[in-house]
Amino acid sequence: MCDFVLHPRLVRDTSAVGRFPLSYLLLMEDANYPWCILVPARAGIQEIFQLEAEDQKQLIWESSLLGEAMMRLFQGDKLNIAALGNVVSQLHLHHVVRYRQDEAWPDPIWGRAVSACYQEEERLHRISQLQSALLDRTSTFSSDVGGI
Amino acid sequence: MCDFVLHPRLVRDTSAVGRFPLSYLLLMEDANYPWCILVPARAGIQEIFQLEAEDQKQLIWESSLLGEAMMRLFQGDKLNIAALGNVVSQLHLHHVVRYRQDEAWPDPIWGRAVSACYQEEERLHRISQLQSALLDRTSTFSSDVGGI
Repeated sequence: MCDFVLHPRLVRDTSAVGRFPLSYLLLMEDANYPWCILVPARAGIQEIFQLEAEDQKQLIWESSLLGEAMMRLFQGDKLNIAALGNVVSQLHLHHVVRYRQDEAWPDPIWGRAVSACYQEEERLHRISQLQSALLDRTSTFSSDVGGI
Repeated sequence: MCDFVLHPRLVRDTSAVGRFPLSYLLLMEDANYPWCILVPARAGIQEIFQLEAEDQKQLIWESSLLGEAMMRLFQGDKLNIAALGNVVSQLHLHHVVRYRQDEAWPDPIWGRAVSACYQEEERLHRISQLQSALLDRTSTFSSDVGGI
């Protein structure tokens, strides 16, 4: 784990929100959707099945805690979760809150060209909302991501 | 669990492959990709976080066993896993083996109109390959799906 480095593309496209025992939590830079990414801090892993069994269990726990928090916070109609990695192969798990009236519904949101950037204030507000919701739910989440 | 009924759209678009302790395993009717779907046999569940904690652990175990088996069997470049459910809200987890030369790469495969049907012989061969690979890996998989 000591040689884990977050992929530069993920650094570029996201803002850090915090960290769970296993995974970093990132906010995707697309204001169209509440869209978070979990990245298990394990070096050299592309697929969930390559994680140790205990890490797999921790990942689904972190994912479910995050997903439930996002759906309550943003009052979505459906949560979309995906591990794709065709472009960035470092294992990362998308969590996207979807609405029946969003611009891509009912299609998936990936592979679409247009994305809307956050205004600085919106971005900080969303990060703060997520941090508060997760800190309320578990003492294992930290909003201090250190040196990623 | 006794009142679990597989969604008619999943019945229509897939063929049964077998069952794990938690989930039914289905083969998607799209010959473009090795594409399987896991459906936890729990009534009224739309999101992974709505499953009991033990079911969540079982789901990631079944998913990983399936994903690793599919990647070995079909020698893919990347596995795509997704819980979407914007059209069919009953919880189901897609597992798709992707190749750098497939027609959608590197985009996701969902939301594309064109799909290629299996020839009967191809379909039976693929189901049989999957059943053999999973029966080799775990005694908890059964190729008898009973009355779904």
